[in-house]
Amino acid sequence: MEYEEPKFFHVMEYAAAADGDVIDMVSGNPDWEPPAALREALHEYADRSSDAFQYPPSEGLRELREAIAARRNVDPDRVVVTNGTGEANYLAMARAFERDAGEEALLMDPVYPYYPGKVSMLGGETTLVPTDRDGGLDVGAVREAASDDTALIVLNTPNNPTGAVYDLDAIREVVAIAEAVDALVVVDEVYDHFDLTGSFESALTLDSDRVIVTSGFSKSMAITGFRVGYGLFPDEHVFQAKARHMLVNVAGARPSQYAVHHAIEATPPDYYASARDLLADRVDAFTEALDAAGAEYTRPEGAFYVLARFDGFPGTMANVKRLIDEAGVAGMPGDAFGTARSDWIRFALVTPRAVEAAERLAEHFGDR
Amino acid sequence: MEYEEPKFFHVMEYAAAADGDVIDMVSGNPDWEPPAALREALHEYADRSSDAFQYPPSEGLRELREAIAARRNVDPDRVVVTNGTGEANYLAMARAFERDAGEEALLMDPVYPYYPGKVSMLGGETTLVPTDRDGGLDVGAVREAASDDTALIVLNTPNNPTGAVYDLDAIREVVAIAEAVDALVVVDEVYDHFDLTGSFESALTLDSDRVIVTSGFSKSMAITGFRVGYGLFPDEHVFQAKARHMLVNVAGARPSQYAVHHAIEATPPDYYASARDLLADRVDAFTEALDAAGAEYTRPEGAFYVLARFDGFPGTMANVKRLIDEAGVAGMPGDAFGTARSDWIRFALVTPRAVEAAERLAEHFGDR
Repeated sequence: MEYEEPKFFHVMEYAAAADGDVIDMVSGNPDWEPPAALREALHEYADRSSDAFQYPPSEGLRELREAIAARRNVDPDRVVVTNGTGEANYLAMARAFERDAGEEALLMDPVYPYYPGKVSMLGGETTLVPTDRDGGLDVGAVREAASDDTALIVLNTPNNPTGAVYDLDAIREVVAIAEAVDALVVVDEVYDHFDLTGSFESALTLDSDRVIVTSGFSKSMAITGFRVGYGLFPDEHVFQAKARHMLVNVAGARPSQYAVHHAIEATPPDYYASARDLLADRVDAFTEALDAAGAEYTRPEGAFYVLARFDGFPGTMANVKRLIDEAGVAGMPGDAFGTARSDWIRFALVTPRAVEAAERLAEHFGDR
Repeated sequence: MEYEEPKFFHVMEYAAAADGDVIDMVSGNPDWEPPAALREALHEYADRSSDAFQYPPSEGLRELREAIAARRNVDPDRVVVTNGTGEANYLAMARAFERDAGEEALLMDPVYPYYPGKVSMLGGETTLVPTDRDGGLDVGAVREAASDDTALIVLNTPNNPTGAVYDLDAIREVVAIAEAVDALVVVDEVYDHFDLTGSFESALTLDSDRVIVTSGFSKSMAITGFRVGYGLFPDEHVFQAKARHMLVNVAGARPSQYAVHHAIEATPPDYYASARDLLADRVDAFTEALDAAGAEYTRPEGAFYVLARFDGFPGTMANVKRLIDEAGVAGMPGDAFGTARSDWIRFALVTPRAVEAAERLAEHFGDR
């Protein structure tokens, strides 16, 4: 097993070591406030009796699983609370491979780099499948790529890095393809609160025993460090997912689970709406500046990112470093996300300085 | 891949559903207070800026890794902070297998049941190796069992379930055997603060590039639900361990890491000493009652558990249930821990009612 150094760290280290002032648009850490109820619950937890400091149930606090189940309209028995959405994806992907139903994973290109990393760690082989021009699902390409060796198809909607929100009918067709080749479909919906189209529909509504939906609270509650995610497994896979979760992690962190549970119950819809509005405003300002810079870009329908391409300035690691040094803006090279957008640069809009960064880019590329 | 329902849950569920009052001696949750500084730090954290709620470094907060490194006298670069000792063991065991150095794990019998579960999940094969009468390492048996197919040897000292504290010279010989067959040795020292002999020495003192030491704060700070553990990897394995940790969990929970870091710095040695003294007193009282019950037992040198055998009453699941119903004491059947002690019952001394439980056992078996 060969592991690769993640490019994220390389870019972040380079940006941190740069001489000038650099605006970090590399990582997906929300920069807004978590729900007030989350802080209150953490105070409350700190004074609970020592019993409350011991192992939660391995699959998560019962009340948290019930709150998730109610929100997602599924049976609580299907909910496994994980150490962030990352672990939920790991469990779901492992489940797909351990069925002896093939060794191949179909991942949409451009791809969130953790997915091929997990596939490789689990002994699988990644096949990258092209998407539409704007990042939407290309069902024909999925159909063409699928074979008896396909054990797993991973979708992410709203999508990182393209910002595409997948059409539910297209997901339904992909699920039918999965059924035909005995694959499982993992749908990572961690950005579901950041749908800017108003038309996002969860893959759960397909009610398919081929679909594992994963998500978490890292983005929706602005707490990437709390590590509370979940997988919603079909009945026939939930026992094995719980078993692997127990063998790897025993359980997730209880202070985090306690705080998230209270925050789910006590946080009004306004909280989520205003984070989404903030992001929508940043998308407007950022894409306006990209227009001024003469850049090509995909206007995101959701999630936190904008992919942009500057004429004569492909998004290589060398150019990303040049942009850090010369424009004071740090993005991610497109080739970190598969092959489809290797000329592009991804900018994460989760900084209060997103508008300032856009102006810097407009000035830098406008000058050329 | 076949997963087994853990026996722990089965016994706990049975005990919870029982009619009478049952003293739970099944699980290893400390029943004493966590350090005061831990609660204070959690309050402090709850008021930190939202930056502090985002991803910690994947391998753990730098200040926590440094505090662990200082305590264990190793380079901070070797420290990977994990989601409890359970994850540290998983990473270490995975590392042993992914080297293509064999498929076999040698586990000491009796065995902590998570170890063979992890081996099997990782695609390895378990060979159980007998230990001495009191649970100490039998170096000759390890030598006899080791072969070119051996990739991994797992030791746990102080030991769960036997309470044995391994002799450092014996560990040194096992490491030499591992070297001869190209295996790694994982030494789980999570009970290191609960050495009742005063003679425990960490396997770190061997300074071997074959040895991965794992531990955590679940037991020493009475916070099994916080999920803060660590692995101390030899230089040549630490990169791969970090990579797997990132691909599985991204990072551990930051509120937990923050609180543990402050508790390490602010907690006086008295705290650990009084928990150990409490446990020593319970060992005395419990073994006295076992004498009165005419039971055979292994007096623990450390950790939280006593293995006992009652004449004509083998520690089967059926008898463990009978003991719950008839004596109001819940233990764990010996066959949950491999083959060597399948006639025995394990009692966890981490309940304020340990003495009362001992009296119940004395009365129950004294009557017969």
